[in-house]
Amino acid sequence: MHRKGLLGQLIQNLCCLPGVGPKTAQRMAFHLLQRDRQGAKTLAQTLLQAIDEIGYCKQCRTLTEGELCEVCADKSRDESVICIVESPADAWIIDQATGFRGRYFVLHGRLSPLDGIGPDELGLDRLEQQLASGHVKELILATNSTVEGEATAYFIGELARKHQVSASRIAHGVPMGGELEFTDSNTLSHAFNGRVGM
Amino acid sequence: MHRKGLLGQLIQNLCCLPGVGPKTAQRMAFHLLQRDRQGAKTLAQTLLQAIDEIGYCKQCRTLTEGELCEVCADKSRDESVICIVESPADAWIIDQATGFRGRYFVLHGRLSPLDGIGPDELGLDRLEQQLASGHVKELILATNSTVEGEATAYFIGELARKHQVSASRIAHGVPMGGELEFTDSNTLSHAFNGRVGM
Ligand SMILES: [Zn+2]
Ligand SMILES: [Zn+2]
Repeated sequence: MHRKGLLGQLIQNLCCLPGVGPKTAQRMAFHLLQRDRQGAKTLAQTLLQAIDEIGYCKQCRTLTEGELCEVCADKSRDESVICIVESPADAWIIDQATGFRGRYFVLHGRLSPLDGIGPDELGLDRLEQQLASGHVKELILATNSTVEGEATAYFIGELARKHQVSASRIAHGVPMGGELEFTDSNTLSHAFNGRVGM
Repeated sequence: MHRKGLLGQLIQNLCCLPGVGPKTAQRMAFHLLQRDRQGAKTLAQTLLQAIDEIGYCKQCRTLTEGELCEVCADKSRDESVICIVESPADAWIIDQATGFRGRYFVLHGRLSPLDGIGPDELGLDRLEQQLASGHVKELILATNSTVEGEATAYFIGELARKHQVSASRIAHGVPMGGELEFTDSNTLSHAFNGRVGM
């Protein structure tokens, strides 16, 4: 009955949120209009402002509304270690989960020649400038453990070598507390072959 | 790292959506800013417009941007049967699930004296005007099957009787395809006692 009109449009537009289908969108629309118009207004305004003002850090390419993101602007961070990640979300997760106090570099993807994604699309020219500057001593390659993520890590590892910068790859293996039985065979094989002495 | 600033604010505001916690909000914010700024902009604009323009139908009290909602404005609908529901979402669900071609009346709640919700808060004065007009022949009471929903249905049933309008309550029982074993005891007892001849 309401599918047409503004309410139908709102429900349809809410479906652009990841993981939100028509039923959830409907519940969201009714909730906002009936119980939280003030919250909905603030959300819409913040969203418009964010779209308008949030761009990319000129040093590490993460999302930020400034020239430099908070990490790059933080003088207490170690400038000599850069952690390479595929997305701003990955940088965020690592920063929250680990005690890492270096900087990041966000690729916004991974090498994928078939999709036309080469070194330039990932900003590797900019990364190479940073490597060439002589301030960087170590790269931590934290791309995903997919075929393309591994290939990207390998490629950047070679770049590091060219500039005499050491590079390390984050460890992959059985998750902490994870049971072997429920670990996929790829991970298990990786964990087995990458075993370390005790 | 990003918790402050506009991105942190956006993530926080996305949490006003029902069922969205900090992790989901974070995923939504990154998705919108990295992959769908156009969709995000349209969503924000539609939301602002909806907040501004969507009010309540003067006849049935459902959400609508017009004076009358689409159902009330639809001349092909049977004006003599009114289905009473607690929320606009319930009206929508019934309209999509059943072949009902009458009108609705939305209570926006249920009688709850302890919370100060009486007949006036549910718009029952307006419903009574409609009953008094003589055009209405039947009420279908589709409030929820909770204690308060049942009490509300009973109260409105009495109003109908006062105006010589027939009233019926939607049937409650074991869901179609539902197994007795997984049906709560209240429903089962209701289904058993409300059994119909075959
Ligand atoms: Zn940065
Ligand atoms: Zn209406």
